[in-house]
Amino acid sequence: MKQMLVKTSTHDYPIYIGKSLRFKLNELIKESYTKVLIITDDVVADLYLDDVRNSLEHFPVIEAVVPSGEASKSIKEYYRLQTVALKNHMDRRSLIIALGGGVVGDLAGFVAATFMRGIDYMQMPTTILAHDSSVGGKVAINHELGKNMIGAFYPPKAVVYDIDTIRSLPDHEIRSGFAEIVKEAYIANKPLLEELLHKKLTDISEEELIRYLYEGISVKKKIVEEDEKESHVRKFLNFGHTLAHALEAILGYGTITHGEAVAIGMLFALRVSEHYTDHDLHTERYKKWLDRNGYPCSLYGISHDDIIEKMKLDKKAANEQIQMVLLKAIGKPEIFDFTDETIEKHLQAFAKELNEA
Amino acid sequence: MKQMLVKTSTHDYPIYIGKSLRFKLNELIKESYTKVLIITDDVVADLYLDDVRNSLEHFPVIEAVVPSGEASKSIKEYYRLQTVALKNHMDRRSLIIALGGGVVGDLAGFVAATFMRGIDYMQMPTTILAHDSSVGGKVAINHELGKNMIGAFYPPKAVVYDIDTIRSLPDHEIRSGFAEIVKEAYIANKPLLEELLHKKLTDISEEELIRYLYEGISVKKKIVEEDEKESHVRKFLNFGHTLAHALEAILGYGTITHGEAVAIGMLFALRVSEHYTDHDLHTERYKKWLDRNGYPCSLYGISHDDIIEKMKLDKKAANEQIQMVLLKAIGKPEIFDFTDETIEKHLQAFAKELNEA
Repeated sequence: MKQMLVKTSTHDYPIYIGKSLRFKLNELIKESYTKVLIITDDVVADLYLDDVRNSLEHFPVIEAVVPSGEASKSIKEYYRLQTVALKNHMDRRSLIIALGGGVVGDLAGFVAATFMRGIDYMQMPTTILAHDSSVGGKVAINHELGKNMIGAFYPPKAVVYDIDTIRSLPDHEIRSGFAEIVKEAYIANKPLLEELLHKKLTDISEEELIRYLYEGISVKKKIVEEDEKESHVRKFLNFGHTLAHALEAILGYGTITHGEAVAIGMLFALRVSEHYTDHDLHTERYKKWLDRNGYPCSLYGISHDDIIEKMKLDKKAANEQIQMVLLKAIGKPEIFDFTDETIEKHLQAFAKELNEA
Repeated sequence: MKQMLVKTSTHDYPIYIGKSLRFKLNELIKESYTKVLIITDDVVADLYLDDVRNSLEHFPVIEAVVPSGEASKSIKEYYRLQTVALKNHMDRRSLIIALGGGVVGDLAGFVAATFMRGIDYMQMPTTILAHDSSVGGKVAINHELGKNMIGAFYPPKAVVYDIDTIRSLPDHEIRSGFAEIVKEAYIANKPLLEELLHKKLTDISEEELIRYLYEGISVKKKIVEEDEKESHVRKFLNFGHTLAHALEAILGYGTITHGEAVAIGMLFALRVSEHYTDHDLHTERYKKWLDRNGYPCSLYGISHDDIIEKMKLDKKAANEQIQMVLLKAIGKPEIFDFTDETIEKHLQAFAKELNEA
């Protein structure tokens, strides 16, 4: 089992990465809780809910299952979970466990952040992608007008990452997760990037996977420790996300995975970056890597005006200027503000590159 | 203008108390904001919204008016306000102003706490009661199953208390506000308590009112600085509130005011306290003060089982034990846990005292 400790303004919390950790929760949970509410989705419930419940024998356990998918990050599901917690007499000394991918982590985390003004919660990510969202305390639900618009900064008490649970993910989920690892590499770990760009995702061993996750999480840990509330360096983690959030919002969550959208967004951000630097950003190698691993690479025929409109709704936007993270070099991210006109020009060139102009 | 500074874990914020402050917001708001959203209720809007809007001439101003009354602290109104903020392109550098009593302060504060994971907000209390809720960063909405069950600890950037706005309150609102000042006096300021218990509320001068508010807020400030997240001493502020919350929940918010419910709850807490101390708690003088000032004093024929059931839903409860703040002496609060049976016995005695057994 690998382990690291993340410092926050309120408390420090451990991240455990290893095999079969879902059977060891009684050892890993050090505090005494009056009750434990496991929140998971219907797909994960079938696979791991029994294991998790059985390893919590010292606690009264409540379960709540939400439909798998982004649509569960709704105000309706959020309120229903508050009702479950209240009806089962949870109190301020109760614990919530988020067992699942990013959707469950964000949703359950926001329930924990606001139930009785905040109770403890633990992240148990079950996807590669969730290595990112489970660390750093960003929790949220979606509003019809934008992703993650309602939420909080609220760090978990622990992250328990059982590697067994990510073994049998479908290909698009593996792509989704690795896009965020590549992102972390791009903004802060050049050797990792160069190693990854040589890889075919289907050939990665379990040992390698654990190491990549550990290194990706290490990048994230360092950044969120420096800037918990995203006032400066934490914004770098949004490399590739300005376009990605717009695509997801317009296509409807579920058409492509979050990481696949980020992968497209990173290619766009790299192309824009090239206007502001002479450094080699490995863009061509990255493009080949996307191709080799079956990433979709398209703007899906969406009008540029619609994309720009959504980009302005991004939380990073201010004064209706569009903010993007660009690279001055690999490992050297910077934040740039853009007018609509400039973004439009870059989108045109990008569409042309994708043969969609 | 009187002024004090409250320290929190994230920032310090000023409280301004004085006359005509609603005309001086441009001086009092030091930061630059992209937009300002004023949230108020329909009653306060008629009286002061124009004044506040006109004194914000340096900012683009948006307004949102909710129906006056506790029913506005709903998930529905909360979501609607998020929609207003998004539709008007508010961003992370925008400000929310909560102009109104505790309902508006709690609701607008929780919107600010969670809009894009948290933006700045300012409290402008317009009732005596809100001297309490506007300080200390507790924000929340109600769940059908309990008051303030969904919320956060999220301190404001400033509290601007314009005394003009509390001059024309109806009697039951004056009673409501003074109950909380008496509470603050009971737990931490004996001289203030003894002065107040001599008073008839209708005879209090403006000068006295400002002083009482200042002293009440000083008690609150000291406690929330010591325990922002309510893990120990902040619980003392719930003196009188265990029964009060139960009464309000059962009667429906609006039958009696919050402070009137607290006034009844304090009498109950004093009677229970007398079993655990030999100190004089001025209970008889307090009871006469309630009577002289027209406070309702009743359990409204509610069954004790119903009261106990609701008491257990209180956020202070843990392990389904009922928690009450009692006094070992005036200025010496302590927390006690009770079984249902003991509470039932005390409720019986209390009902008898109120001639309702």
